[in-house]
Amino acid sequence: MKRINVAICGFGRIGQQIAELLLNRSTYYKQKYQIDARLVGVCNSSSGLIDQEGLQASKWLDKTQYQAGLTEQKFLEKVQADVIIETGPSDYVTGGKGLFYLNYALTHSMHAIAVSKGALVVEGKKLINLAHQHNKKLFFSGATAAALPTVDLFEYNLAGCQILEIEGVFTGTTNFILNDMLQHECAFTESLEKAQAKGIAEPDSSFDVDGWDTAAKITILANTVLGADIKIQDIPRQGISHVTAEHIRDWKKENVIPRLVGFIHIKNLQIQTGVELRLVPANHPFAHLQGSNKCIRVLTQEMGEFVVSGGASAPLATAAAALKDFELMLKTGC
Amino acid sequence: MKRINVAICGFGRIGQQIAELLLNRSTYYKQKYQIDARLVGVCNSSSGLIDQEGLQASKWLDKTQYQAGLTEQKFLEKVQADVIIETGPSDYVTGGKGLFYLNYALTHSMHAIAVSKGALVVEGKKLINLAHQHNKKLFFSGATAAALPTVDLFEYNLAGCQILEIEGVFTGTTNFILNDMLQHECAFTESLEKAQAKGIAEPDSSFDVDGWDTAAKITILANTVLGADIKIQDIPRQGISHVTAEHIRDWKKENVIPRLVGFIHIKNLQIQTGVELRLVPANHPFAHLQGSNKCIRVLTQEMGEFVVSGGASAPLATAAAALKDFELMLKTGC
Repeated sequence: MKRINVAICGFGRIGQQIAELLLNRSTYYKQKYQIDARLVGVCNSSSGLIDQEGLQASKWLDKTQYQAGLTEQKFLEKVQADVIIETGPSDYVTGGKGLFYLNYALTHSMHAIAVSKGALVVEGKKLINLAHQHNKKLFFSGATAAALPTVDLFEYNLAGCQILEIEGVFTGTTNFILNDMLQHECAFTESLEKAQAKGIAEPDSSFDVDGWDTAAKITILANTVLGADIKIQDIPRQGISHVTAEHIRDWKKENVIPRLVGFIHIKNLQIQTGVELRLVPANHPFAHLQGSNKCIRVLTQEMGEFVVSGGASAPLATAAAALKDFELMLKTGC
Repeated sequence: MKRINVAICGFGRIGQQIAELLLNRSTYYKQKYQIDARLVGVCNSSSGLIDQEGLQASKWLDKTQYQAGLTEQKFLEKVQADVIIETGPSDYVTGGKGLFYLNYALTHSMHAIAVSKGALVVEGKKLINLAHQHNKKLFFSGATAAALPTVDLFEYNLAGCQILEIEGVFTGTTNFILNDMLQHECAFTESLEKAQAKGIAEPDSSFDVDGWDTAAKITILANTVLGADIKIQDIPRQGISHVTAEHIRDWKKENVIPRLVGFIHIKNLQIQTGVELRLVPANHPFAHLQGSNKCIRVLTQEMGEFVVSGGASAPLATAAAALKDFELMLKTGC
């Protein structure tokens, strides 16, 4: 049976959830793909843990087992992995450590799965080319709306189709806040605090509520799926923090629903992108999105329009998205 | 450059649309996959046409070029194809010629793409096993709601996830009729005639309006995606022909929308299936389906709920679905 060694770089809540799910699915991989998948190493920002025979939860949960300094290049030099899964914090200016991990993996005979967005926002196109040059695979469902199918929608379900428009509600947090404001006719800050209390919004919420998170996903999709070359800073961008209870009351009277929408329109080979607060009619597919659900709408030349909704944010769903990528690697001959 | 020879068995409106699209995408396949894809043969129920160098439209449109009797086994024996695309009429009792084509192809070194449903309804599980035994690929997006992603949703987007529920509006025709009745508060026969005039419903509409089409798709999904072993006859089944204008008026008063829904529920490893006329609330994802659009809802253990809508019936969309399968073969190493 072929052995595939996996290493996880960045070992917080999501990383640990991935490790657990990978272990739970061990028998499934053996039966379905005749693959013996083992987690051989994990590292966080300051230390790491390697066992080429395969790590079990008892070991990775025991902090005394970690070796200080076994991270970044030292970790990747030592661990013998076929696939790395990168789940560290995102740096949207330099790409940060995530970019280092992906670059190093792809140039040193490892396939890579990105869960964090930073590296792909900054160098998405270069990373795709790098993977291609080195005949390695780079998958990043986790970095583009996680459980909501986005990248794989174009790669598989709509393979071969000419894409005319992509738009969607890509940030679960802003959707939660707008829904809460609609329900309670309350102020933005009040709904934001609820989202923070529930762990849906980060303590620093500006990345989500100012539209950066949506812009990041639009950047990755445009540069990787459509081969564009845009910078996140160049995307015209609106947020939702200026929305007041009075706006909400007025919109309810007009029977329209506010949604923070990211879009890519393609016309005459020109790509136009943006993030805007849209007022959609009550029968629009974006109108019905409950809680922190997300949604993508795609218009194609050959197959018409598709709308996919779902993929609520949750650690297990994000972990399952990363391992979906792992399985797509197995299907396409990793 | 690797050459891949394609043959189309059943050459009506859909078959010709596939031939045209395959030819149009010839350069695209060369650039993206380094594959020289050629259409080397087509056959209908009584005659066929083979050119191992590749057929052009001028030839397949010229009926004088066809050789009488060059069909079924004679056709498959003579044509040197790597992939066959089966688009003939469906026989839901015996599997008909479709079943012969698929069986023959998979046992004679050919991959197969099914667009018609009959063979898969009758022998879905056996055909999957046959493909597996002979190390050949069998894809059938076109046979399961065509452009609406169904099979590939489970194979790719939700790879690895535990499926708890599948349900959907799988028959565009019944959705069109119910929508028309809702809009005009008219009798079933009146809306059916409109659907027939528009070419959405067949002259013999019973397959669609009595729920058989939905039951066929449920049978294929249950037996192929979930490994069940059910017969179409055993699925409890409702239709829509009993719906009157009075029903419609009552439902509108109650603010509920009628939808013909096919479902598969999985509980404790038991699979329960059915086709039923459901009254869904106005904010339900099935409620908003316009025209002849279709929809699938999937509930998973790990990623929660997904709803995909779109995939309106049209020859180009069905052809694009068949060639999506062709491209998935290329991606997974045909």
